[in-house]
Amino acid sequence: MTTRSYERLSCPIAESLALLGDQWTLLIVRDAIFGLTRFEQFQQSLGISRNLLARRLKTLVETGLLECRPQQPGGRRNDYVATKKCRDLIPVLMALGQWQDKWSPHPDGPRVVPLDRTTGHPVRLRIRPADDHSGVKADAVVFSRRDNSEKAGG
Amino acid sequence: MTTRSYERLSCPIAESLALLGDQWTLLIVRDAIFGLTRFEQFQQSLGISRNLLARRLKTLVETGLLECRPQQPGGRRNDYVATKKCRDLIPVLMALGQWQDKWSPHPDGPRVVPLDRTTGHPVRLRIRPADDHSGVKADAVVFSRRDNSEKAGG
Repeated sequence: MTTRSYERLSCPIAESLALLGDQWTLLIVRDAIFGLTRFEQFQQSLGISRNLLARRLKTLVETGLLECRPQQPGGRRNDYVATKKCRDLIPVLMALGQWQDKWSPHPDGPRVVPLDRTTGHPVRLRIRPADDHSGVKADAVVFSRRDNSEKAGG
Repeated sequence: MTTRSYERLSCPIAESLALLGDQWTLLIVRDAIFGLTRFEQFQQSLGISRNLLARRLKTLVETGLLECRPQQPGGRRNDYVATKKCRDLIPVLMALGQWQDKWSPHPDGPRVVPLDRTTGHPVRLRIRPADDHSGVKADAVVFSRRDNSEKAGG
């Protein structure tokens, strides 16, 4: 990921996109939130080159979105596990999914449905007064996939 | 914008990113929602090449996110105006801004604050039960900028 000139814009949207506005980064984030942890799983899910994936994973670890954990004590292979900072991107993924489902709905209905982990009920993003703190925490959201694809984990 | 191989993934998040997961597209969307309409305004805001900007604007018109309107009857120059489909991306921008403000807060506080247009009060994204339809419509959100930058319009 390169430093992009729009980082100079003093805007939190521009700054977040400087990190996330890459073709693949948000899809790796998605897969990590869906529960993938292994290099080979990400590679199979996304079908990108190993070099490109390795660079993106390195950046995501450096920026605190993924945490490296040895798969076995003393082993050389690592799992890549979504951190709290990564899981806090769940509203971004939900917002993208809601928009797509509204404007280009799939004939069979929504294929990825966010659920409240504690109740199992579907949840949605809503725009609310800032002083209303009710609602479900991002960390309590799990995604239910309704297709048979093996591609994107879940 | 090229057709990317991850469009094959059957996932609304991947599909939306196939259109939006470009370094500049969401920033043009942001600027259009902030109220910029003229080619020169977008160019000055983003500092990208005229060719690149022209290609992105063309794609955004073709995909229904921007609407071309002649600046004067019979004139050759167009305004590029955000459509409803474009304004429905406001939650994506809010989610990105909230995440950035939480994890990399600016020392002077939030620089872009979404407001309910009718009340003038700040609003936030919340995750709510899907059957709770209360809240503010995306179309009723305006952004208040709290810095003196001339770069990003608004």
